[in-house]
Amino acid sequence: MWIYEKKLQYPVKVDTCNPALAAMLLEQFGGADGELSAGIRYLTQRWTMPTDRAKGLLTDIGTEELAHWEIIGTLAWKLVKDASEEEIKGTPFEAHYVNHGKSPFPHDAAGVPWTAAYIQSKGDPIADLHEDMAAEQKARTTYEWLINISDDPGVIDTLRFLREREIVHFQRFGEALMIVQEDLDSRKFY
Amino acid sequence: MWIYEKKLQYPVKVDTCNPALAAMLLEQFGGADGELSAGIRYLTQRWTMPTDRAKGLLTDIGTEELAHWEIIGTLAWKLVKDASEEEIKGTPFEAHYVNHGKSPFPHDAAGVPWTAAYIQSKGDPIADLHEDMAAEQKARTTYEWLINISDDPGVIDTLRFLREREIVHFQRFGEALMIVQEDLDSRKFY
Amino acid sequence: MWIYEKKLQYPVKVDTCNPALAAMLLEQFGGADGELSAGIRYLTQRWTMPTDRAKGLLTDIGTEELAHWEIIGTLAWKLVKDASEEEIKGTPFEAHYVNHGKSPFPHDAAGVPWTAAYIQSKGDPIADLHEDMAAEQKARTTYEWLINISDDPGVIDTLRFLREREIVHFQRFGEALMIVQEDLDSRKFY
Amino acid sequence: MWIYEKKLQYPVKVDTCNPALAAMLLEQFGGADGELSAGIRYLTQRWTMPTDRAKGLLTDIGTEELAHWEIIGTLAWKLVKDASEEEIKGTPFEAHYVNHGKSPFPHDAAGVPWTAAYIQSKGDPIADLHEDMAAEQKARTTYEWLINISDDPGVIDTLRFLREREIVHFQRFGEALMIVQEDLDSRKFY
Amino acid sequence: MWIYEKKLQYPVKVDTCNPALAAMLLEQFGGADGELSAGIRYLTQRWTMPTDRAKGLLTDIGTEELAHWEIIGTLAWKLVKDASEEEIKGTPFEAHYVNHGKSPFPHDAAGVPWTAAYIQSKGDPIADLHEDMAAEQKARTTYEWLINISDDPGVIDTLRFLREREIVHFQRFGEALMIVQEDLDSRKFY
Amino acid sequence: MWIYEKKLQYPVKVDTCNPALAAMLLEQFGGADGELSAGIRYLTQRWTMPTDRAKGLLTDIGTEELAHWEIIGTLAWKLVKDASEEEIKGTPFEAHYVNHGKSPFPHDAAGVPWTAAYIQSKGDPIADLHEDMAAEQKARTTYEWLINISDDPGVIDTLRFLREREIVHFQRFGEALMIVQEDLDSRKFY
Repeated sequence: MWIYEKKLQYPVKVDTCNPALAAMLLEQFGGADGELSAGIRYLTQRWTMPTDRAKGLLTDIGTEELAHWEIIGTLAWKLVKDASEEEIKGTPFEAHYVNHGKSPFPHDAAGVPWTAAYIQSKGDPIADLHEDMAAEQKARTTYEWLINISDDPGVIDTLRFLREREIVHFQRFGEALMIVQEDLDSRKFY
Repeated sequence: MWIYEKKLQYPVKVDTCNPALAAMLLEQFGGADGELSAGIRYLTQRWTMPTDRAKGLLTDIGTEELAHWEIIGTLAWKLVKDASEEEIKGTPFEAHYVNHGKSPFPHDAAGVPWTAAYIQSKGDPIADLHEDMAAEQKARTTYEWLINISDDPGVIDTLRFLREREIVHFQRFGEALMIVQEDLDSRKFY
Repeated sequence: MWIYEKKLQYPVKVDTCNPALAAMLLEQFGGADGELSAGIRYLTQRWTMPTDRAKGLLTDIGTEELAHWEIIGTLAWKLVKDASEEEIKGTPFEAHYVNHGKSPFPHDAAGVPWTAAYIQSKGDPIADLHEDMAAEQKARTTYEWLINISDDPGVIDTLRFLREREIVHFQRFGEALMIVQEDLDSRKFY
Repeated sequence: MWIYEKKLQYPVKVDTCNPALAAMLLEQFGGADGELSAGIRYLTQRWTMPTDRAKGLLTDIGTEELAHWEIIGTLAWKLVKDASEEEIKGTPFEAHYVNHGKSPFPHDAAGVPWTAAYIQSKGDPIADLHEDMAAEQKARTTYEWLINISDDPGVIDTLRFLREREIVHFQRFGEALMIVQEDLDSRKFY
Repeated sequence: MWIYEKKLQYPVKVDTCNPALAAMLLEQFGGADGELSAGIRYLTQRWTMPTDRAKGLLTDIGTEELAHWEIIGTLAWKLVKDASEEEIKGTPFEAHYVNHGKSPFPHDAAGVPWTAAYIQSKGDPIADLHEDMAAEQKARTTYEWLINISDDPGVIDTLRFLREREIVHFQRFGEALMIVQEDLDSRKFY
Repeated sequence: MWIYEKKLQYPVKVDTCNPALAAMLLEQFGGADGELSAGIRYLTQRWTMPTDRAKGLLTDIGTEELAHWEIIGTLAWKLVKDASEEEIKGTPFEAHYVNHGKSPFPHDAAGVPWTAAYIQSKGDPIADLHEDMAAEQKARTTYEWLINISDDPGVIDTLRFLREREIVHFQRFGEALMIVQEDLDSRKFY
């Protein structure tokens, strides 16, 4: 079970009102390689992991991804909360607005609702840890594309922090893969 | 952000190996009115709530629903972890098994992956709290259908606990709705 | 069964050619809380309602929602039927146009096809009537967001009419809920 | 707009309690080529048809398909309304039951929710009428597969009636195609 | 099985850098009536066709559609490969970019991922060949809408070639339908 | 472009009529980690790969996966082509049959239509090659689960061949990753 601590994992500063950028950031709130995908994926894979250490790693990183998901929601919210309807019209946020107002929603930048088809849990630790390493690489890439189209310094600072975390997670999943592979070595092919 | 506490909110006892029942319980792991829907819905609606009390309520209940999601995953896992392939064949769990092995996965009892289309966040507190009250009624109903087809005493005990929590949440959302309605009364129609 | 009467429930006047607004209005033609969701939801819930009065109410409102769906389609059509390709290019209607030309289509403002995942029918009258009250609140909200971004007086007039009808339906579902609850009171918990 | 007439287009007699057959019949309630697909498809295509006669044909057949949808829902309902939980367990209806109780729901026989991706409206009358002729052939085929696995005489009688109607619709769309093609002959390629 | 030949079926010339047009062309890369739908549909229908000639026709056209899919991907790629982030921002390609960078992806112009719900294979040759004729008409229409919004001469030239191929396929499916109908005439109704 | 060679990459022998097994094998015809996912994924990622060798590898393996997709379709078809309706009733193939008759269809073992949400192409070669290595591990796992529930010797022989190919592909993607990483080493972080 989880306990909520009333703070963000990393401070969120937003320098502009920018509905178009808010729409793009929702890619990481509800897109294929976003933070919701990450959190749900890792927390789902825990039951079939062969060692407590691997279970613990998935729990830790999965829980941290929920905190990142909260950060992205806060970024998107701060970018639109003071926007007038005139500022929203003509931007890619408009289609979001007529459905969800200014609330974040777990869909991608194009407005496609999040689906568990984005994630996988195979009941095989080797396959799952490769899935997780790939997931971190894909999330890293999304952050790079988002940084490339952002010009709000506060947003860029937070996105850089989140990108760094994905690289750290990638490395930790790589280490876990080596340990699990050694553990399984005598009884499995892969 | 969240902190993980290494225990289940309610003890999970499973008396049988029962892949068919595991398949049905996944309705609450990744189905329309399941615990994942509940958690993601409430945590998403927080930003546009007008009062700290309403935000806090959504955070509290949303966080608890994640704990329930973990309970359901544990139930499903315990019902299949010792099943042989022969015990799985011919049951509704077989289609799950060829994709996910014995790992839980956020799809419904029929195997349809979870989609954010199941939930809503409108950016309007009155609409969102009605959505939440309806969600609790629907989750209560799913638990009743699941209890009706279960004959494992340990599973039934846990499902009864979870059903009770939905009724409590329904009441708390009803109270929040009254408070928010009073708060908004002078400036809004509904 | 239904009989078609060759008129709209409410007159549709459109003052401008406006493909961008047409794209946004499709939210109510095929979006989560649009008129198709409403019609299909209520007509699906009829079989398990406990009283003829509740069945009749769902039939009446469900049938009226189909008429609203037709109104929205007519609004969207009138906003684009005389648009040249040059007027469509660069607007959010362009992605719709390359797939569906100028025909309305049951997708939302972002272009996501309608899915029955948006609606629910639980086989439990209390849960279903709460679902219906929430649905009306959500549809009311969508109409408010649409009115906020519209500047065509004819469109706004029709949207206001439709918003009013949702409020009336909300009240009627609330009354039905009270009656059904009394009817079920001796044999059910909720 | 539509007016509801309180009768079924064709009488529904069901001779058995048969949850498995109910699950299969839902293919025509919410499957790819079912009655909901038909109704929504034809009613959506009306705005861009070039002649009043073609619009009227789509309205007539679309309205009739809604009546067929109601017939299928009634069939499915009558096949399960008296089933005990014991009769439901172990059948393909069980996954439906834990989500929707005994209410019909617009998903297919496998439980996949209806999506507007099943239908098309291209804004081109020649393409749309070919789509419609194909739709009737596909619906005819589904009725044949359903008749093949049914052994309830009342159900089979109704399915045969519905299959016959699809063949009639196919012919009427073929005639409409010839008329529209002649009408467009001087200005269009196809 | 297939052998890859390292050339495009038709030369692809692109005269401009145009991310907005790239986004629209993806309709034929991963949209409802695009080349992926065509290829997968025809190749899937082969097993239940009654004659070798019909199987061969589906194989030939299905294989050609994969070549068309490759052409569309190349068109989209060439329209964006030299685009700066500044040229992408504010265009409908931006939501694609934050997820997929400059790589083509099988989603439609609005960004909705391709789904097999767009296609059908009924196990009935008459129904399937009608489906195929409709598919070609719908693909023809999409090409017309795309040509209407294109102003790049090289792109238009390729789109015209692809539209012509759909018309040829439509005719070949029509001939196959006549042959199959004659073949089945003594034992089937349709 | 592709040329069809009229043979299967590996001979398909099926020893039994077994609709239930056919239903399960469709997991690899249209499931998350099946052969269609593999083929479409690799062929989509080619445009943004930095070297001709990497593009060629994706083309080769993507083309081979289409051949595997054809093998799986042939397996599923041979397992049901002689089945009577009585043999189909009561098996998990029944829901497939009422929609698609005996034709294979790109959905998973539970009947969920294939969606491009299962695959990714990020426009970043490092991320894409990790995605591909994970994909091969996941496909390998699915083959192991399928082998575990199969008792038809001919089917098992073919599944073993296909599993072996996934392991070879995994190794080749690993080698490609090393080469691409070296190639990019001076200008990229990962």
